[in-house]
Formats: sequence, structure tokens, C-alpha cells
Amino acid sequence: MAENTMAETLTTASIEERRSALNETVAELYFAGDTRGLRLILNSQHPADLADLMHQYGDDEQQELFACLAESVAAGVLAELDTPTMLDVAENIGPEQLSELVGEMAPDDAADVLGELSEEQSETVLGLMGREEADEVRELLTHEEDTGGGIMTSRLLTVREDMKVEAAISHLREWAVDDQVFNIYALDIEGRLKGIVSLRSLVLAQPDAPIGQIVQRDSIAVAADMDQEEIADLFRDYDLVALPVVDDDGRLMGEVTVDDIVTVIDEEATEDMYVMAATSSEEREERSTFGVVRRRIPWLLVCLVGTLMAGGMIDAFQESLSSLTALLFFMPAIMAMGGNAGIQTSTVTIRNLATGELQKGTVLKSILREMRIALMMGSALGTLVFCVSQLWTGNWIVGSCVGLAMFCAVVFSAFLGALVPIVFRGVGVDPAVASGPLITTLNDGLSLGIYFSIASVLLASWG
Amino acid sequence: MAENTMAETLTTASIEERRSALNETVAELYFAGDTRGLRLILNSQHPADLADLMHQYGDDEQQELFACLAESVAAGVLAELDTPTMLDVAENIGPEQLSELVGEMAPDDAADVLGELSEEQSETVLGLMGREEADEVRELLTHEEDTGGGIMTSRLLTVREDMKVEAAISHLREWAVDDQVFNIYALDIEGRLKGIVSLRSLVLAQPDAPIGQIVQRDSIAVAADMDQEEIADLFRDYDLVALPVVDDDGRLMGEVTVDDIVTVIDEEATEDMYVMAATSSEEREERSTFGVVRRRIPWLLVCLVGTLMAGGMIDAFQESLSSLTALLFFMPAIMAMGGNAGIQTSTVTIRNLATGELQKGTVLKSILREMRIALMMGSALGTLVFCVSQLWTGNWIVGSCVGLAMFCAVVFSAFLGALVPIVFRGVGVDPAVASGPLITTLNDGLSLGIYFSIASVLLASWG
Repeated sequence: MAENTMAETLTTASIEERRSALNETVAELYFAGDTRGLRLILNSQHPADLADLMHQYGDDEQQELFACLAESVAAGVLAELDTPTMLDVAENIGPEQLSELVGEMAPDDAADVLGELSEEQSETVLGLMGREEADEVRELLTHEEDTGGGIMTSRLLTVREDMKVEAAISHLREWAVDDQVFNIYALDIEGRLKGIVSLRSLVLAQPDAPIGQIVQRDSIAVAADMDQEEIADLFRDYDLVALPVVDDDGRLMGEVTVDDIVTVIDEEATEDMYVMAATSSEEREERSTFGVVRRRIPWLLVCLVGTLMAGGMIDAFQESLSSLTALLFFMPAIMAMGGNAGIQTSTVTIRNLATGELQKGTVLKSILREMRIALMMGSALGTLVFCVSQLWTGNWIVGSCVGLAMFCAVVFSAFLGALVPIVFRGVGVDPAVASGPLITTLNDGLSLGIYFSIASVLLASWG
Repeated sequence: MAENTMAETLTTASIEERRSALNETVAELYFAGDTRGLRLILNSQHPADLADLMHQYGDDEQQELFACLAESVAAGVLAELDTPTMLDVAENIGPEQLSELVGEMAPDDAADVLGELSEEQSETVLGLMGREEADEVRELLTHEEDTGGGIMTSRLLTVREDMKVEAAISHLREWAVDDQVFNIYALDIEGRLKGIVSLRSLVLAQPDAPIGQIVQRDSIAVAADMDQEEIADLFRDYDLVALPVVDDDGRLMGEVTVDDIVTVIDEEATEDMYVMAATSSEEREERSTFGVVRRRIPWLLVCLVGTLMAGGMIDAFQESLSSLTALLFFMPAIMAMGGNAGIQTSTVTIRNLATGELQKGTVLKSILREMRIALMMGSALGTLVFCVSQLWTGNWIVGSCVGLAMFCAVVFSAFLGALVPIVFRGVGVDPAVASGPLITTLNDGLSLGIYFSIASVLLASWG
């Protein structure tokens, strides 16, 4: 018993320090060609830190660093690498070594890695693995990536409900030491889930009591095809740490744990932000520049068509514009402010839908709230821009057009921003699309249309 | 032992069904004035579901529903309500009942609720609570909301390292049944954290072994003032479920658990999205429309100034424009496309900074990647818009201006989008601001400036 060791306290500064010290040491050893030194230092690090480190190097260096890792460490790092780097490494080490590393991983990590390879490559690797392990991974690969089945692990701690507590405890002794155990699942003779046994109740129960007596009977499970986002909502709502996955007959298939859910929540937020910025988070898996451009350009083209149509409006309105060129000066303001007000409202709506705060029962409340805000903002901005235009141009017609158009553009854009994501969700389209350039371009165009229409009417009656 | 009970399997459909069935029943009972029925049904639900339900009703109904809840259920619901609703309820029930409910909560939930009240109100409630509980909550209230101290709970399971295993187990028996236990902390005689004891190792150890023998000595802890975002990164990187918080002398103060981290990750993503949409997630705590408008309007005003300056550019360029009005038609396209390309790049950069994927070592790699993408996209869009303008106007000068300006606008905006968030992070500004209207307006204006400059040069030499 080392009396003087204490838990290491991390501070912001110490994390930074540790990271840059590691980086420097590795860089030094690498450029000195000291493979033995590299092996020593790399193999004593956490796989997540090693993956971080490898992402900072180019392809060739990555391969050399990876070659320094012991098998168990290499398996951990491979599971933590981003997809493009993982694919590079996998290609480089070849199917035989890959099958050994994948065999070292937890079945869910193994399925994640193999799921990124082509079907042919994946089958080659599975063929080189032990029969039993390969089957376990194959089973996991049958589920869609973003469902309960796709994120669950199949390595669980189960006991039969007719077992005695002491038998269950000795069963527990055989379990691999380094896995975190959240729940112990009690099954009936046919493998159907009867409930959960907490480690705590196991510790406190009489050794000869049957497991059935300490099972929590009100436990919930999810179906394997449930969407990961919905599962994340259950974890959020009920503060869960693990959730069993069962098949149609209630037989236990696997377990989703809270660390997978942390990843899901990150992924879903990333996906929403990328869609709102008119790209897709799948661009993260692309290895070529062209691959990324292919994902980013389609919505920009939609946007281009929209803005060219706005240009067409200017073309059609040319005559009136030339009689009152001051109207031109406020075009950028009207277009951009409508677009921005729409983005605020749609972002708030999309985020509330994503975190489950906005549900069927609160739709009307949410739209009314946004409309009250929009009316107040539209009035303020309309009045302000009216005053500015009076000072700038001194023309009443321009001032009235600009002020009124600003009010209408803000209110109308906000209305679309509050409504469209909800409608999209209702018809099964990703609500995040509603904050992308599609809706922004629509709002820009509509704002310009409103502006020109008001100008036409006012010019015809006062001009 | 009820042989036929099984774990309940939730499917997407069954969750929806359960929710709407509950809603209907509650609405029926409520409008029939059947308080007894309401009491029965409400008190058998999970507090999270009840909070969801209450958010769908207006103020008066919320108060009536809340009045039907038993004390322990009411405490759970109060901790789950959104801030404006919670404040309404707190005001309505008065300090005495509030102090009883807060006393029922875990100390961290209690601190969260009291942290939202004014200092005076909070002190009144604390004064009405039991001395010991009040002190525990007061201690938690001293930490900043978004630090380790602010999200930790102080109710932990600790053992002395010189205790025997059997003594520790009987200590465990006294622990409240319904709390999830992640870690058991081993302390020395002065309360300093020596390491973590897993429940599993406790079960498997010899009853007369000292705790010191089964302590994990390589455990980590964090300082109470560490930012919650950094703590979330540690949970992500190392797949943690709980992390102890210690003071400067290494004495154990509390524990951050993974369910708090799920909330933190949601909050941080929400905050980033709101900032990117030019508002602040603090608007969620606002009870009045004006309060929300006050948070949303400042950036819109910045944007308004920017777009009016763009209008000023049109004013200054008026003469050339009137000689070649076709240049006007492409103004919306040039402005919007620059802005959109900038949003794509900045969103990708901001998100990678937030999830910790983009760090010091990968800055250059990230900027170069974005520039390659921008060059390819700028070329494609520039060529396309050149062709369109040839077909539309048949004017070479307009075509060249538009094509070249589009290329420059896309590349330049993308460069700013890739660089500015990193610079902001470096100088301590929230990088998410760089995808807000500040940078979009800047990009819009710059794109227009580039367009007009190119047009001036070409008109002077060819026109």
C-alpha cells in the first residue's frame, strides 16, 4: 500500500501542459528515429490521447507511429481514430493484422470499424477472425448504424432469475475486470428479460436468496430498431446510465450505455449544425476535397438560383428603380434582416424540437411566442430604418417603403422560421433543413418581393 | 415472485401512445374538476413526464396541477421544470412550501433551483430549511454555475482507506436506496482523495481485507473551478461515468456524474447554435417578450449597420451602375453566396473546436483543407455564374465581373470562416460568434466591395 499516492488533480493548465509535453516528446523521438523510446512512451498513454496525437500528423508519420503500438493499445487507438485516418491505417496494415486488432475490441467497437469498410473488405477481415467473435460482430452489423441495435454492445452481464445470489456473485467473478458494469440483467429460461438487478442489491442480499427476489420489475427496454435520437431522449428524460435492447419476443439482445449516448448527442448536434450551414456531417468521412465539395455545393446551387431570381426581380423592376435610385440603397438591409430574423426563429425552433422541449402539445404556444417577439422586433427595426432613410434620402416614399417593408419582412420571415421546421418534422423531413440556405434564400427573395411590391403601390399612388 | 411480469419494451409508437394517453386522461380529469382522479394519476408518473405535461398548460392550470402532487413528486417535478415555469410555481407556492420541496431534493438540484431565485428569496428559503441541509446547499451555491463545483453533487459514498471491506459494505447498507452509485471514494484521515473503489471489487474482495488494498490508485480528479465544457471533454475522451472534484489540498468536495454531462453537452450545443443565430441561450430564461427581444436585437442592429454601409457602396457606385444596370441583377447572388460559403466553413470550424477535434496541432491542417475546398467551389460557382450572365445579359464586362467576383467572394469568405473562429478562441472570445451575423454581414459587405472594385477596374479599362 503506497501511503503517499493520491488521486491526480487535473486543472485546465495541467491538461494543456500534459498534452504539449507529450506532443513535444513524441516529435523529438520521432525525428531522432528513436523507435524504442517511442514505443515506451506511446504504449503508456490512453488510446484517446494517442488518437488525438495521430490526427496531428500526416499519413506516413501516422503509419510509423501506429506501428510502434502494442496490439491491445493499437486496437484501442483504431477504435478512437476519425474515419478517414482509420481507413488509411486499416489499408496500410492489411486484413490479417486488422483482424487481430478487431478481435481485441469490444464487439460494438469492432462492428463500428468494420461498418466503415467495404462489404468485401469487411468479410475478408471477419473470415480471418475466430468463428464465435465474428458471428457476434456480424450480428451487430445487421442493424442500422443509427438505431438501438447499431449502438448497443452485446457483451453483457446476465443471470438467470432462478439463480441464487451467491451463484450470481461467483458468475460475476468471471467477468473481465476492466469493463464498467452498469446493470446486471435477469433472464428467464428462454432468454427473455425479466428485469434489472443492481450491483448494490446483489451486495446487500442474503447469499441464498433467489435473484428473482431482488429483481427490479418495473424496468424498461427498447426495441432494436428504435432511432438513436429517441433513445437519447429517454436517457435525458429519465437520467439513465444503461438501457437494455430486446427483440420482438422480449429476448435480451444488447445494452446501450450512457457513453454511447454522449457520442449520439454530439453527433446529432453536429449533424443539425452542418445541415443548418447547408452541408452534411457525412463530409467528415470524406477523404478527398472533391468529396467534400460534392456535399457542400448542392444547397449553394439552390441558393444561387434563388438569388438570381431576386436579380430577375430587380431586372423587372428596373424602370421604377431608375426613377427612384434611392430605393436601391436599402435593398441589402431589407434582404439580410428578413433572412437573419428567420434564422433566429428557426434555430430556436429546431433546437427545441431536437432536445424534445417542443412537442405536439406546445406547438401553438411556441409559434405564438415567436410571433409576439417578431411583432416587437419588426416594429422597432421598421421605425429605425424609416428614420435612417429620412435622414439619408429625405424622401417620404422611400422612407415609407423601407419602414413598412422591414416590418413585413421581419414578421413574415419569423413566421416561416417558426412554422416550417414544425411542418418539416410533421412530414418526416429533417427540421434542420429549415434553417439552411433553402429557407434563408426564400426569406431573402420574399423580403425583396415585399419591398418592391410596397414600392410599386406607393409609387403608383404618391409618385 | 410474479412469474409473468417482463421488462416493458418501449417502441417509438408506444412512447407516443403513452404520452398522448396520459395527456388526454389528465385533460379530461382536469376539465371535469376531478381532483381525486388527478392526484391518483399524476402521482404515479415520472417527474420528467409531469414536467413535460405541465409545460403544455397555461399559468393557472400549472398551479392547479402542481397542487395535486405529493411532496416527493412535487420536489422531483420542480427540479425538472424549465426556468420560467419553475419561477412561476415557486412564487405561487411561497417560501415555506418551497423550502420543504427544496429540502427533499438532492443538494445539487436544490442549489440549481435556489440559484435561479433572487439572493433575498434564496436566503429566505434557506433560512426555513434544516441547518445542515441549508449549509450543504449554500456551499454548492458558492461555485460558478458552469464549473465543476457548479454541477457537482456533494452527496457521495466515501470510505476510509484503513476500513475493512466488510465495514465498508455495512456502511453501504445505510446509503439511500434509490441513488445510482458510480464510484466509492477512498479518503485518508484528512479527507484527501486517495482513489476509487469499484462496487465490483468490493463484492469480490475478502471481507477482512483493508480498503487500501483494492483502491484504484491511478484515478483522476478535477479542480472545482474547471469549466464544465472541459470536464465534458474529459468524459468524452476517457468514457467516464463519474469524476471526483477536489479542493486545492486534494480533499474530496463532490462528484460530477455523466447524467450532468449529458445536460452540459446539450447546453453547450444549444448555446453555440443560439450564438450562431445571433441570439443567446439565456433568452430561454426570459419570461417577457421584451426580455427576448432585448437579447436578439443587438446583433441585428450590427447587421443593419453593415447592410446600410453596403447600401452606401451602391450609392457611391451609382454612376457606374446606371451606365451598366445589368451589374445590379447579380448583386444578391454575389452577396449571398459569399455569406453562405463563409457560414459553411465557420460552422465546420466552430463545431470541431467545440468537440475538441480541432486543437493547436491541427489548426494549419484544418485551414489548408478548407482553402482547397473553397478554391474548388469558387472556381465551379464562378464559371457557372459567368455562363449564366452571358446567357442573360450577353455582356462580356458583366460576365467577367460576376465570374471573377464570385470566385474571390467565395474564397475570401471561406478563408475568414476558417480563420476567425480560431483567432477568436485564441483571444478568449466565443468562436461561435464567428458564424453569427457579424461575420456574415462582413462577408456580404466584402463580397459587394470586391464586386464593385472589379467592376470599376474592368469598366475603366474596357468600358
